[in-house]
Amino acid sequence: MDKPQDGPLVTIIMGSDSDLPVMKEAAGVLESFGVGFDMRIASAHRTPGRVADIVRGAEEKGVRVIIAGAGLSAHLPGVIASYTTLPVIGVPLKSGALNGIDALYSIVQMPPGIPVATVGIDAARNAALLAVQILAAGAGESSLADGLREYRRGLAAAVEAKDAQLQSRG
Amino acid sequence: MDKPQDGPLVTIIMGSDSDLPVMKEAAGVLESFGVGFDMRIASAHRTPGRVADIVRGAEEKGVRVIIAGAGLSAHLPGVIASYTTLPVIGVPLKSGALNGIDALYSIVQMPPGIPVATVGIDAARNAALLAVQILAAGAGESSLADGLREYRRGLAAAVEAKDAQLQSRG
Amino acid sequence: MDKPQDGPLVTIIMGSDSDLPVMKEAAGVLESFGVGFDMRIASAHRTPGRVADIVRGAEEKGVRVIIAGAGLSAHLPGVIASYTTLPVIGVPLKSGALNGIDALYSIVQMPPGIPVATVGIDAARNAALLAVQILAAGAGESSLADGLREYRRGLAAAVEAKDAQLQSRG
Amino acid sequence: MDKPQDGPLVTIIMGSDSDLPVMKEAAGVLESFGVGFDMRIASAHRTPGRVADIVRGAEEKGVRVIIAGAGLSAHLPGVIASYTTLPVIGVPLKSGALNGIDALYSIVQMPPGIPVATVGIDAARNAALLAVQILAAGAGESSLADGLREYRRGLAAAVEAKDAQLQSRG
Amino acid sequence: MDKPQDGPLVTIIMGSDSDLPVMKEAAGVLESFGVGFDMRIASAHRTPGRVADIVRGAEEKGVRVIIAGAGLSAHLPGVIASYTTLPVIGVPLKSGALNGIDALYSIVQMPPGIPVATVGIDAARNAALLAVQILAAGAGESSLADGLREYRRGLAAAVEAKDAQLQSRG
Amino acid sequence: MDKPQDGPLVTIIMGSDSDLPVMKEAAGVLESFGVGFDMRIASAHRTPGRVADIVRGAEEKGVRVIIAGAGLSAHLPGVIASYTTLPVIGVPLKSGALNGIDALYSIVQMPPGIPVATVGIDAARNAALLAVQILAAGAGESSLADGLREYRRGLAAAVEAKDAQLQSRG
Amino acid sequence: MDKPQDGPLVTIIMGSDSDLPVMKEAAGVLESFGVGFDMRIASAHRTPGRVADIVRGAEEKGVRVIIAGAGLSAHLPGVIASYTTLPVIGVPLKSGALNGIDALYSIVQMPPGIPVATVGIDAARNAALLAVQILAAGAGESSLADGLREYRRGLAAAVEAKDAQLQSRG
Amino acid sequence: MDKPQDGPLVTIIMGSDSDLPVMKEAAGVLESFGVGFDMRIASAHRTPGRVADIVRGAEEKGVRVIIAGAGLSAHLPGVIASYTTLPVIGVPLKSGALNGIDALYSIVQMPPGIPVATVGIDAARNAALLAVQILAAGAGESSLADGLREYRRGLAAAVEAKDAQLQSRG
Repeated sequence: MDKPQDGPLVTIIMGSDSDLPVMKEAAGVLESFGVGFDMRIASAHRTPGRVADIVRGAEEKGVRVIIAGAGLSAHLPGVIASYTTLPVIGVPLKSGALNGIDALYSIVQMPPGIPVATVGIDAARNAALLAVQILAAGAGESSLADGLREYRRGLAAAVEAKDAQLQSRG
Repeated sequence: MDKPQDGPLVTIIMGSDSDLPVMKEAAGVLESFGVGFDMRIASAHRTPGRVADIVRGAEEKGVRVIIAGAGLSAHLPGVIASYTTLPVIGVPLKSGALNGIDALYSIVQMPPGIPVATVGIDAARNAALLAVQILAAGAGESSLADGLREYRRGLAAAVEAKDAQLQSRG
Repeated sequence: MDKPQDGPLVTIIMGSDSDLPVMKEAAGVLESFGVGFDMRIASAHRTPGRVADIVRGAEEKGVRVIIAGAGLSAHLPGVIASYTTLPVIGVPLKSGALNGIDALYSIVQMPPGIPVATVGIDAARNAALLAVQILAAGAGESSLADGLREYRRGLAAAVEAKDAQLQSRG
Repeated sequence: MDKPQDGPLVTIIMGSDSDLPVMKEAAGVLESFGVGFDMRIASAHRTPGRVADIVRGAEEKGVRVIIAGAGLSAHLPGVIASYTTLPVIGVPLKSGALNGIDALYSIVQMPPGIPVATVGIDAARNAALLAVQILAAGAGESSLADGLREYRRGLAAAVEAKDAQLQSRG
Repeated sequence: MDKPQDGPLVTIIMGSDSDLPVMKEAAGVLESFGVGFDMRIASAHRTPGRVADIVRGAEEKGVRVIIAGAGLSAHLPGVIASYTTLPVIGVPLKSGALNGIDALYSIVQMPPGIPVATVGIDAARNAALLAVQILAAGAGESSLADGLREYRRGLAAAVEAKDAQLQSRG
Repeated sequence: MDKPQDGPLVTIIMGSDSDLPVMKEAAGVLESFGVGFDMRIASAHRTPGRVADIVRGAEEKGVRVIIAGAGLSAHLPGVIASYTTLPVIGVPLKSGALNGIDALYSIVQMPPGIPVATVGIDAARNAALLAVQILAAGAGESSLADGLREYRRGLAAAVEAKDAQLQSRG
Repeated sequence: MDKPQDGPLVTIIMGSDSDLPVMKEAAGVLESFGVGFDMRIASAHRTPGRVADIVRGAEEKGVRVIIAGAGLSAHLPGVIASYTTLPVIGVPLKSGALNGIDALYSIVQMPPGIPVATVGIDAARNAALLAVQILAAGAGESSLADGLREYRRGLAAAVEAKDAQLQSRG
Repeated sequence: MDKPQDGPLVTIIMGSDSDLPVMKEAAGVLESFGVGFDMRIASAHRTPGRVADIVRGAEEKGVRVIIAGAGLSAHLPGVIASYTTLPVIGVPLKSGALNGIDALYSIVQMPPGIPVATVGIDAARNAALLAVQILAAGAGESSLADGLREYRRGLAAAVEAKDAQLQSRG
């Protein structure tokens, strides 16, 4: 990452627009870190060719991490991972009768050779934070890492504030 | 199916040669019914392009049903179903720490629009029987249907023989 | 299917009229493909003889695929499969405390010799699409297969439209 | 049970002779209580008509309780229950990848109106004891009830002997 | 059951009055069959001695079947079974985070020697029907058996009416 | 614990001598801390009165913590807890088809008012350590607490030794 | 506990203020027994150092039992247990798609050497009762034990009142 | 990563030397890619301070990705993640009665703010590949990415060879 980059660093892909309310949280986190991204809807099963095209396009634009959210059989992250050696972060989405257990198993239990970095069910925010951590780890510049440390301090401060509030009430 | 067909009617695909011992049972059933088939190894994740090629080739050869077996994340049947409107029968295979529950959920919980006909865990034999039933239902000729009824009579006779044996021992 | 057929090609059976809201989706899909069907209520446990009669009647009328939906113990698809060699598609229905897991296991884990083609929990729409795919595979005429390809194009177009809309908003 | 009965009071049915090693334990318990029984192999899916015949025959012979063991989809107890108002005791058998969870759910989650008295996975012995308890409850004579109390005393004595042995070793 | 009986034939016990809405369905079924019963609240953990007293009292009054409903750890049916050789029917109740799976496992997986006849989660109605079937099996008089057959005919007629209604709408 | 105590401080109870190989590990830990204990076999279901007697006897002897191990329905810890206000530690044991999940749910999901302190499946060693921690917390003397800190240092040292060994090999 | 203690005997810790509604029930129980406690918010992951500080502070103040509630990955109780040899009671909280199963497994399945006394999902009240039982067991004074027995009498009386009410209605 | 780096880029940490057989596979993959790493044993519960030290040391040495494997409660990856903003890859290990489900849930269901990149149960090899993908994504140099593409070609070639072998046998 030794030269300026204009294009997005992260692509967020989801299988259906019904996944948008959850997956938007990933977008919000990336924005707050100033990380460029684009967001796409493409289905592993309904538009298989399109998924391949988006992945290829992302590689060409210089994208470094892909976040993919899917529910039910949730093949999208694994299918994306089959097309690229970029790190793919999978977000199992809670939907249908099995509450996301199906999506979790389907995303995390990838066969040897093709990993997907899986986060918790509906954990789109964590997916974005993981993407930022990955970018920061490779970046050789301290801004993202600084941002992450700042973010962590914010998390801790919020917990401490709640604790202080509880003590003062008690 | 109103004219003679020389090519295979069924393609059996599995993700790894370690799936062969189970998937061979499907081959055995098809052979016993005189149904032509071919058997392929192709991985949804390690050889995505090849899977598409095999499916396209199967359609061109006149294949009418595809049987796909996979373990763990088990995306193979769903990925095949995304490339074709032929009926795809999915066989969840028992492997890894989750004993095939992961594969079952991943295969059966397909999104609206792209069904996979799922059979039980490791039930390759039933997958082949289902393929024969599908071929018989569409065939307009009675030979396969006759064969299926004969097969059922054999199943019943085996149960009855076991029962008779048990009675005579008692 | 080499001669014209007036009767239904598919019979949809459910165990209770409380299953109707889900199972109607199967009917809607068949209608949209112009596939004739009838729809019946019959319980494997409360009206066992009636189930046998309906299956026999379906065979006589030339039905080629049976779709059966059931919740809880969900024996209906398997009991139907015991009476016929027509392909039986089972739809596990979400009901009761176990959310359909009980129905899924009960339908999919059939013993060797008697397969049921299982789709996802509450996936009546996919059951009907699978029935159309089975009919198309055996038909020797291209109309249903064309319809299926058209349907798939529609699915893809809908995804693409959503994606375009998302891009334009972004 | 006000007159002497020569025929069996209990019928034990299992779907396959592979279930015999577990189901024999039920037979052993009934023998030890002097309760007449017969034991049959009949499959809900492979020999549906035969199951109905056996149930009808059992009713005619004066059988008062039916014990049915099955694995996987395990429809046998429920199918039997659909043919009779005799109490049906279901034994889920451990087999296949799901270790009997499938059979347990399939047997116990019967729809309203048609109960199956379910015991634990592979608990054929308890099924037979439950049958004896049912016979004793209805018998109006004290011999079976006495036998059950004696049996319980034996269970307790065995526990106490093990405890005494442990104390003396300590 | 060779002499007239004035006292209740069935005792229904539940661990808490919050179980009453479900367990009342058992009472309704017994009433409809004219089977005398009483209904008690007693907790295996909060009132262990009382449970023993109620069971002893039930035996003395001539009760022949005990129905026990419980949620969560659901020890009540098993604890009752440890005090009596009367048949105990256990009803796992849906409550808490595990939706009744905990209660189901706790009730059905009894150790060798002490069975509990388990019905489905929240299936109090089936528990009562099973109790009637047990009474009928032992009764030596045909009235309860007749009632059960009448009940089954009612179930079948209801299904048939729904089916007829569906056909006429179609 | 302000005066010397000669009797046991802990009673270990298990439902069957088949539980002894696991439950002995608890005994070994207590011995290593010099904590007096006795060990009993008593079944909640086969010897219900005996369990009550043992608990009463334990209270009279000055026992301060009870450890109870059980598999399957695993009512023993909860039944013990219903007889005493001493802390009861429950050890779910792995046995039968469900691998201890049944025992875990049955032990941990106790109703409001009657807690059981549950440890992991087959974690008899941790049960004993928890008992020592409870004794140390209440003891007002530092010997057990010292012993526990020493034990922890031992655990850490073992990990560090393994790490050092790994480094030196590398 | 041989001298008067002014500081709290129990510390309640939770990972987030969203856990407060459930964890407050523990506070209520401790108050009703007159057991001093404090209540803190600290996250194992967001404020790891703070958790260590709170545990150290608790030990210094003479706290004898720690109650920790957490959802999802639920590492808080185990992390606390790694810092102290005081008994730690873990409360798995129901949150997210897995309904608390994740938290239950994460809390109860601690490795050998570091136990956590786990109670049921959302069972904060039982956690507090267990803490009181632990304090009473070690106290050498009878007041808490008396309070616990009184509490149990109250539980029993409530059950008996509900039963009496049910009888009088019947 | 714009200057040469001598120290390790990856640290592999496991909780116990019993995890070594599985975790070594991660080491093997990193070696094959020429990625420097070190491997440590440290327990989140038995050596909490040491885990913090190792993480701090890793950051100082320029490590960019941490791989952590753990079974049972499996807190190690999450605890590590609480100490650093480096990407942490968690490997749930199969051990104990729950076969790794406990570890999977505990690792993947991290709370908002602190992600762990989870791979499949026992999938140490995939963890290492994911680490290489992360390093390659951030590296700005093509060697690792080239290596990954070469690796993928190898995977594909192996599948193709197996398929060719199967065809030639057929």
